[in-house]
Amino acid sequence: MNCNTPTDIVFSFEGFRHRAGLTDSHSDGFGIAFFEGKGVRIFRDNKPGHISPIADCVKQYHIKSLNVISHIRKATQGDVNLENTHPFIREIWGENWVFAHNGNLTELPDMSESFCQPIGSTDSETAFCYMAEQLKNRFRKKPNEEQIFQAVQDISNKLAEHGTFNFILSNGEWMIARCSTNLHYLTRKAPFGKAQRVDDDGVIDFNEYAKEGDKVTIITTVPLTKDEVWSKMENGGFVFFKNGEKVWEIIGTPRTEMIDDGTLGTAKVA
Amino acid sequence: MNCNTPTDIVFSFEGFRHRAGLTDSHSDGFGIAFFEGKGVRIFRDNKPGHISPIADCVKQYHIKSLNVISHIRKATQGDVNLENTHPFIREIWGENWVFAHNGNLTELPDMSESFCQPIGSTDSETAFCYMAEQLKNRFRKKPNEEQIFQAVQDISNKLAEHGTFNFILSNGEWMIARCSTNLHYLTRKAPFGKAQRVDDDGVIDFNEYAKEGDKVTIITTVPLTKDEVWSKMENGGFVFFKNGEKVWEIIGTPRTEMIDDGTLGTAKVA
Repeated sequence: MNCNTPTDIVFSFEGFRHRAGLTDSHSDGFGIAFFEGKGVRIFRDNKPGHISPIADCVKQYHIKSLNVISHIRKATQGDVNLENTHPFIREIWGENWVFAHNGNLTELPDMSESFCQPIGSTDSETAFCYMAEQLKNRFRKKPNEEQIFQAVQDISNKLAEHGTFNFILSNGEWMIARCSTNLHYLTRKAPFGKAQRVDDDGVIDFNEYAKEGDKVTIITTVPLTKDEVWSKMENGGFVFFKNGEKVWEIIGTPRTEMIDDGTLGTAKVA
Repeated sequence: MNCNTPTDIVFSFEGFRHRAGLTDSHSDGFGIAFFEGKGVRIFRDNKPGHISPIADCVKQYHIKSLNVISHIRKATQGDVNLENTHPFIREIWGENWVFAHNGNLTELPDMSESFCQPIGSTDSETAFCYMAEQLKNRFRKKPNEEQIFQAVQDISNKLAEHGTFNFILSNGEWMIARCSTNLHYLTRKAPFGKAQRVDDDGVIDFNEYAKEGDKVTIITTVPLTKDEVWSKMENGGFVFFKNGEKVWEIIGTPRTEMIDDGTLGTAKVA
């Protein structure tokens, strides 16, 4: 979720976590990161998201945030444990960067003597470390947003040569989505309507929660609601979101294969 | 807390969090990090530890861990917000390193173009970043524990030339404590006895929770219990703990001043 007003994620999160064992099989751990200024609250559990007590705690406190990344894992590489649980976090240019991946990369650079090294054994964290190392080597200080967006494209397209690389990345100010096989987004703004969740038929009327001017973008592997129009991204596509809206989009090329081996998503108020 | 068996921190944590506004004035945020293998669960709040709903959540789940670092903040440098809340975390040599500081450093190296940069505006996080950068520059791969202990001493003694530098540092395998002005520790092992908390008179009989062979070391600014013998560290002293016991100790020199401007501690079962 990327938005222009602090937003409570519970409506989407409740549908999303059903996919961690109930409506889908992504039950190898869950994580959620809420940005709060330059800080980030991150909750992770190696238990399935739909029964995790940590997920219950998240639900209970209705934390509001401008940028949230959540992930439910279906392990492809690496054991089911805390260090292999997304989202991953690293400091880049004095900011928290949060990353969640859906896919599988079969070949990766050796990071064993690099400045930024993976802690767990997933392809995802190694890819993120490579991205962090490359970005820091290119720019000693934070460049502008267009330079960041371009550099992230260059680096991740190289990584994507060796597998499926859908991801969401945020520094708390913007959110970048990259699609290989499966990623959808929508922006909610006035006039607001109702929505019904795909996973458990839960209904919400956003008019009760949102005000004129609010903009909330949700990015997810598979749409979370059945009565809203989701934009489907293409293979090789990138979108840069800020303040709840799409700023730049690289369309990519239509996909030639469908692989569903991980679920990645962000969520939203009410 | 550093121990040889997964240990529940609640007994100590309940006394410790009283100091975040009730028995002491460290109410500018709290944080607690639990290692779990190479992973770490970290909970932080900019609300005072004694009323934080996040602290309530921590209490509720009785997470057991071999290494726990908790901190209640009394701000000296930097606003009261999430990014300035201890403990801080960075990846070093493919491990999570967690750091909490009690004190105030008035002069620090410029880290604005370094590979590891502070996210918030505290002296503490800048000092930790400097330590991380120096360690990574000295060793591209993880050296042995004696080399780590020696390097941490060299780097932190240089930083301590410019202020008060009590800290606790852990990679999930060992814990290093450094004292400038105020740091105490004790090791609980068989035969176990009873203990009464300083802050609220809560009582525990460790015989009901511990078994033969268990070793649990607690390190804290000010002793948490009134009927156990705590070792007081000296100015410039370092201790390296592993599996619940002291492995190496640098005695340091007796302190010449007492400054109490922050509280740092680790906690323990039951």
